[in-house]
Amino acid sequence: MWSESLARVPALRKGGVLDPKAQGGHHCPRGETAHTLNIHGKPQRTIWPAADGVSVEVIDQTRLPHAFVVARLASLADAEHAIRAMVVRGAPLIGATAAYGLWLALRADPSDASLLRASQALLSARPSGVNLRWALERMAAWLVPLPPAGRAAAARLRAAEICEEDVELNRAIGRAGLPLLRALAGRRPSGAPLNILTHCNAGWLGTVDFGTATAPIYLAHDAGIPVHVWVDETRPRNQGASLTAWELLNHGVPHTVIADNAGGHLMQRGRVDVVIVGTDRTTSTGDVCNKIGTYLKALAARDNHVPFYAAVPSPSIDWRLRDGLGEIPIEERPAREVTHISGRLADGSLGELALTPAGSPAANPSFDVTPAGLVTGLITERGVCEATEAGLRGLFPDTTGGLP
Amino acid sequence: MWSESLARVPALRKGGVLDPKAQGGHHCPRGETAHTLNIHGKPQRTIWPAADGVSVEVIDQTRLPHAFVVARLASLADAEHAIRAMVVRGAPLIGATAAYGLWLALRADPSDASLLRASQALLSARPSGVNLRWALERMAAWLVPLPPAGRAAAARLRAAEICEEDVELNRAIGRAGLPLLRALAGRRPSGAPLNILTHCNAGWLGTVDFGTATAPIYLAHDAGIPVHVWVDETRPRNQGASLTAWELLNHGVPHTVIADNAGGHLMQRGRVDVVIVGTDRTTSTGDVCNKIGTYLKALAARDNHVPFYAAVPSPSIDWRLRDGLGEIPIEERPAREVTHISGRLADGSLGELALTPAGSPAANPSFDVTPAGLVTGLITERGVCEATEAGLRGLFPDTTGGLP
Repeated sequence: MWSESLARVPALRKGGVLDPKAQGGHHCPRGETAHTLNIHGKPQRTIWPAADGVSVEVIDQTRLPHAFVVARLASLADAEHAIRAMVVRGAPLIGATAAYGLWLALRADPSDASLLRASQALLSARPSGVNLRWALERMAAWLVPLPPAGRAAAARLRAAEICEEDVELNRAIGRAGLPLLRALAGRRPSGAPLNILTHCNAGWLGTVDFGTATAPIYLAHDAGIPVHVWVDETRPRNQGASLTAWELLNHGVPHTVIADNAGGHLMQRGRVDVVIVGTDRTTSTGDVCNKIGTYLKALAARDNHVPFYAAVPSPSIDWRLRDGLGEIPIEERPAREVTHISGRLADGSLGELALTPAGSPAANPSFDVTPAGLVTGLITERGVCEATEAGLRGLFPDTTGGLP
Repeated sequence: MWSESLARVPALRKGGVLDPKAQGGHHCPRGETAHTLNIHGKPQRTIWPAADGVSVEVIDQTRLPHAFVVARLASLADAEHAIRAMVVRGAPLIGATAAYGLWLALRADPSDASLLRASQALLSARPSGVNLRWALERMAAWLVPLPPAGRAAAARLRAAEICEEDVELNRAIGRAGLPLLRALAGRRPSGAPLNILTHCNAGWLGTVDFGTATAPIYLAHDAGIPVHVWVDETRPRNQGASLTAWELLNHGVPHTVIADNAGGHLMQRGRVDVVIVGTDRTTSTGDVCNKIGTYLKALAARDNHVPFYAAVPSPSIDWRLRDGLGEIPIEERPAREVTHISGRLADGSLGELALTPAGSPAANPSFDVTPAGLVTGLITERGVCEATEAGLRGLFPDTTGGLP
């Protein structure tokens, strides 16, 4: 699961404002920094300024994995709708969409009143989005001091920066995890792929590019390391079966979808070499809060001596917390996500089915906490560390606690 | 999951041939031995001779949990179809249906040729059904020596006996497990229900009555012990969300459906007091093979000091096996069970959805093995024992190995 604070990132750029042209096209090959994820054989981000120069395009994630549809956002209302209707999802991508949404609002009306109105509208689209709030506050702090005439252009530039920061953060996580995967692959029989199990979608689709848990996997695949990914379906919202599988399929990474129930059995039989998951929130002591079911896979990994890693962008570390089980509240989502399911009907249209008897209640706790003791290591943008306070402080001595 | 050999049971009846009238009605209150499961407020088995005296009725399980439909089986072809199309499922119920199917065949033609033809037809309906084969062989051994004129009446009687044996076996498991639940409930705060987690459907619907893992639960509920059942959805076939939930709902047992991912979290939070699952096959050393995902719940139970029991009818013990992980082959079922799902459309009809991207492969291992070391105890028809060879031999000193 995505950190709601994933885009609260200390800028990884080496400095300066980026050339907006570098953000311009639908496909932006950038040499060594080429985008990892390919769709239809071409590098592709999840959000990009449209070629018309006056709108933004995103992948309509409500249609995945059944159709690849690009949605054009030409106004504040479009951006607000995209966030509200989950056309875009994942904290970093929501933050990026909101930043571009401010640009669209300011193009129409650059006044203070417009800026305030737009910020409120975007925030109300996902009121619980910590990351969304942070992106909007950051944008406002930049834009308010400027004369109205210059705000739209500045907003576009700043939105592009927010996107670029997310890409760099995820790429850094990928680079940190790559040697791990390379070493594990080296222990496999010649030609045998490295079997990686992942849960939920800590992938490209929730970020601007690369994803978090998927970043090392994409980098390994692109480096020619043979990998195969066991994709947990991830009930009840099926982010694995729908989103992660779709990403991997499009980028050409060998993978197999499995029921969430299957991972333990596969580990017992030696068919999983490493587990990599994302995180929503990680304590300063290394407890990992992530999508419900992660804890069960961590238990199975320990029981079968399979290394278990979490990809942890530093903005998802909550330095104030020391006890994940005691201190992290778990969101209870609607029962309907358990009792009903969406998918593709035989005619290709989307449909919904009821799965349970009318009258049977359902519960839907959406996250769980994997205690640090079950976690082999944390893959951060600054490198891999033990899931301990000492490990995290070693990589982040400058982070003195408290979120921005 | 059902033992394919669940009806290979040493008869528990105290002896003699049962009065066929006792098997006669749709509802058969029998005093102390009243059926546990109520549907629409009345005791109900899953198979019973119809009131017309010339056919058998079953619950059409392909329509559950969305509709309660009784199917009438009036011929061999009807019985064969019911088994093949999974109108009936669960090894004991399949065996019972086959036995009644022979009766229907012999009513039409009691010759040797007819008996052979009918046996072959029923066996071909589920070729892998060990229990089905056993029921048919047992019936044939009884019927072949009889003069043709007496075969139909004898077949009806013997089919009723097979049903009654299954009911008694399951009732005995329920009685063995009841004191456990009573003791655990006694440790709960006054009025707080005992929270039981179960996986898959080791329930009434796969047997003639009571079920195995569900038998102690029904007996506890009927005895006034407040129970609440966490029902694992049990992907990919959703037997928990569809069948177990439906059973519990109809009998009035408080329950909540959860995604398979949720159980570990609930145990971490102290919201599960005991886990009870069924078994497909248990080794002489206590390793429990059951529906995929069982092992993950056993790991979580150990990690959180929650007792974990398997309901094990003795016919599901494979005395020849000593190493569940090494010796029990795991069935790989069709990928389509993972990539597609069935349920109730908004108009009440049944429909099917695709869940994964076209092109993403899926794997579907259907069972896993929970090592004996994770199992607190085995609930058998002769009592509860440790999941060890000594424990099992203590209860079954007379079972010298080898299946019938």
